[in-house]
Amino acid sequence: VAVTLADIVAITGGKLLGNEHHCVTEVSDLDNANADSLCFISDRVLLEQLRNTTAGAVILTEDLSADCPVNAIIVDNPQLAYARAASLIYPFTPSSNGIHETAILGSNCQLGQNVTVAAHAVIHDSAVIGDESYIGPSCLVGADVTIGKRCRLLGNVTVDGRSTIGDDVTLHPGVIIGSDGFGFARDGEEWVKIPQAGRVVLGSNVDIGANSTVDRGTIHDTVIGNGVKIDNQVHVAHNVRIGANTIIAGCAGIAGSVTIGKNCMIGGGVGIVDHVTIADGTVLSAMTFVSSSLKQAGFYSSGMPAQENRQWRKNMIRLARLDDMARDLKKLLSGFRKE
Amino acid sequence: VAVTLADIVAITGGKLLGNEHHCVTEVSDLDNANADSLCFISDRVLLEQLRNTTAGAVILTEDLSADCPVNAIIVDNPQLAYARAASLIYPFTPSSNGIHETAILGSNCQLGQNVTVAAHAVIHDSAVIGDESYIGPSCLVGADVTIGKRCRLLGNVTVDGRSTIGDDVTLHPGVIIGSDGFGFARDGEEWVKIPQAGRVVLGSNVDIGANSTVDRGTIHDTVIGNGVKIDNQVHVAHNVRIGANTIIAGCAGIAGSVTIGKNCMIGGGVGIVDHVTIADGTVLSAMTFVSSSLKQAGFYSSGMPAQENRQWRKNMIRLARLDDMARDLKKLLSGFRKE
Amino acid sequence: VAVTLADIVAITGGKLLGNEHHCVTEVSDLDNANADSLCFISDRVLLEQLRNTTAGAVILTEDLSADCPVNAIIVDNPQLAYARAASLIYPFTPSSNGIHETAILGSNCQLGQNVTVAAHAVIHDSAVIGDESYIGPSCLVGADVTIGKRCRLLGNVTVDGRSTIGDDVTLHPGVIIGSDGFGFARDGEEWVKIPQAGRVVLGSNVDIGANSTVDRGTIHDTVIGNGVKIDNQVHVAHNVRIGANTIIAGCAGIAGSVTIGKNCMIGGGVGIVDHVTIADGTVLSAMTFVSSSLKQAGFYSSGMPAQENRQWRKNMIRLARLDDMARDLKKLLSGFRKE
Repeated sequence: VAVTLADIVAITGGKLLGNEHHCVTEVSDLDNANADSLCFISDRVLLEQLRNTTAGAVILTEDLSADCPVNAIIVDNPQLAYARAASLIYPFTPSSNGIHETAILGSNCQLGQNVTVAAHAVIHDSAVIGDESYIGPSCLVGADVTIGKRCRLLGNVTVDGRSTIGDDVTLHPGVIIGSDGFGFARDGEEWVKIPQAGRVVLGSNVDIGANSTVDRGTIHDTVIGNGVKIDNQVHVAHNVRIGANTIIAGCAGIAGSVTIGKNCMIGGGVGIVDHVTIADGTVLSAMTFVSSSLKQAGFYSSGMPAQENRQWRKNMIRLARLDDMARDLKKLLSGFRKE
Repeated sequence: VAVTLADIVAITGGKLLGNEHHCVTEVSDLDNANADSLCFISDRVLLEQLRNTTAGAVILTEDLSADCPVNAIIVDNPQLAYARAASLIYPFTPSSNGIHETAILGSNCQLGQNVTVAAHAVIHDSAVIGDESYIGPSCLVGADVTIGKRCRLLGNVTVDGRSTIGDDVTLHPGVIIGSDGFGFARDGEEWVKIPQAGRVVLGSNVDIGANSTVDRGTIHDTVIGNGVKIDNQVHVAHNVRIGANTIIAGCAGIAGSVTIGKNCMIGGGVGIVDHVTIADGTVLSAMTFVSSSLKQAGFYSSGMPAQENRQWRKNMIRLARLDDMARDLKKLLSGFRKE
Repeated sequence: VAVTLADIVAITGGKLLGNEHHCVTEVSDLDNANADSLCFISDRVLLEQLRNTTAGAVILTEDLSADCPVNAIIVDNPQLAYARAASLIYPFTPSSNGIHETAILGSNCQLGQNVTVAAHAVIHDSAVIGDESYIGPSCLVGADVTIGKRCRLLGNVTVDGRSTIGDDVTLHPGVIIGSDGFGFARDGEEWVKIPQAGRVVLGSNVDIGANSTVDRGTIHDTVIGNGVKIDNQVHVAHNVRIGANTIIAGCAGIAGSVTIGKNCMIGGGVGIVDHVTIADGTVLSAMTFVSSSLKQAGFYSSGMPAQENRQWRKNMIRLARLDDMARDLKKLLSGFRKE
């Protein structure tokens, strides 16, 4: 939608050099921008592009403003200001309003003001949905689930297991919250299911990406703190606890009863074994395997970078007897020292 | 629901020290228990908590019974007995009964006694669904699919490809059974789809976790044995065969035509390349990569544990030339031996 | 369905030795074939099975034809010819025809000739769907989405984010196209969502497997070329570009802004970090981790093959100090050379 630069200044707190009545209707990079475009620049590498841009407006830091040939909005953190400004240009637009005639509501549901329940959604008994929340097409909300205000369940989302969800939470398509944890007791060769009686408790301002899953706890709850951001196809097992503002990239798998601190950054494809603890502020690079607790905040890694296949084959044969190599080396070293 | 200790003794086969008319209505840990709570203890580490518990009843082994201040149910395997007892307290409660008015049934479908087809579910032609089975909201059951008795397709589940499913199978939300296997023939630079004509054959007592997928076979069937338990976001490719009572943790990926024996334990994030065979009773720890057959039952591993990032960078540079290191070491050793 | 050998010759361009009026109705391997079965053989290893087969017809190369006791169809590439022939025997059969009465269509949708919209599907405003396309049960097609001709969205598929899809595209159940990319700007300890304004642009002849996800771009589009084949549970992040005819096996994860060339083969479970480039024709074996650009086409690997657990533990302890080992070895080598 069309947004004036005055509106952008209001939401970003920036200082405008230019025409506050100018409207932008889209975002762009500096190269492809036209008078309707909003851009941002946070890296001097793009200085040449800035000088030549024909954008409607550019969000930038003070030091770059002299090089901006068009309307400039000066802020401390251009990316952050851009995120806020772009949210004005691309507001969330629900697919429908009110309760769609094909939606199914159970008994004793409590729906707040201006709740949307889209086509073919199913809300079971005693669910509570807060003001302004949007339940997208074909979503399933289980019995006794509580969903806060201004939440968005975008489509084909399932929330079950009496889970409770805070305010301003976005669940992308295919997300499943509150499915059973994976717990079985052995009976000879067979496995007997351990009923999963806990909930999922999601804080506020949580985002969970497409097809990610969060299992309910066994006895206690699975707890995800405020401001946690989870990417697509992430698996969060039962009894996991994730601290506020931790961010988890795609395809990560978090096994049962893991505790992750706040302000962590978990890379894509990371695997964390069950029952370990990860300190606040820990950073894990992509495809790291965490097999024991990381009690000191730090930057940890373990993925093996790609090698040319023939070299890799040779190296892996050696790796399989690395312990022997180390012993041989030790032997040599002790001999060497004796000399 | 409220369950008497007499009921629990009946299902667990235990011996009660206490009041058989006492009712419990929830599970708890020893610390947070009240008179309505059922607990279990299988580890002497919790002895102090046992001595101080105010639970309604505790399931435990004989040797711990003297330390239990409340009703005690003595069994050999407290976790197993707990699993059975908890299933009484938390019975499966379908979201609806009978055939929902918004469900769509094709022609020639055979539905057994007391089958539930929930809101917006779609059952295609000639599907067969056994007695007491539950087809949850928005589930899709394809043409010619056969589903046994007392199965539960919890919500947004898809079963297609003429698959056949045994009795007492639970498919959690988002599960997809019988999607096409990934098979293509090369035609110059292009790929031509190889039609997938096999089925998925699931045994009885199988559980499959949220958003997991099992592809149909190419010519023969993909076969999953009785009692197999599969966690969330697991991928089982076409033509795979998995033996009875094997258990597979979250995010594992099993490539095409793999044969996994019975009673195996496959850890989270494990990857298994196509066409390999894994012996009965094999255990694979989390994130193990299986690139060739494991013909001897055993405990195998290969994930690389997390290292501090700076150290990891150095180590990975060395790893890329490990074969050279091994040659150098060999040279030194031969020199050393000559001396 | 029943297909004559004449039909198969017509689609495969082969040469028939036998009865062109013979019908086959199924595919089989050589061992289990009967007169209704079509088989193929591309490997002399199966020569004995060929000599003893009772198939209705066998697709094979010239050199094997003398050993075929039944109708033979001689071609250069039996697997490719088989793929085409089998597509006649197993044509796609939509679950319904026309617009199902429970489907929901928004305003200003443009539907081509013979479009199917199955039960409980939801098509939002201004979507365009080309001739002969099939929108399966419970699929969601978002506003302004464009879908080409002869596409198949099989069931529970979501396409949103104003994405555009070419012709002859198959999206298997649970696929999500055009969900938001994972982009956040930091505001102190909190994360502020960066609106995702780009689309997904899928070429023609693309297949995407069950529960895979492709995120829309941030400013530019996520672009997947013609003929790309993607298996189940693959994650393609925002701004990724994938060249024509690249094939990606299950559980791979492609991080944001990655560029993958054409004709690449990406193995199962591969992880690729953000912003790297992969050359045309690159092959990555299963579970390879790509942490920097691969600018030369080649065959790359990095998964660590499974080891017996006890040996692995020892080796991993050594691996954690591999750099020290390398230094020690260097020291020894320099001493050795001095002697």
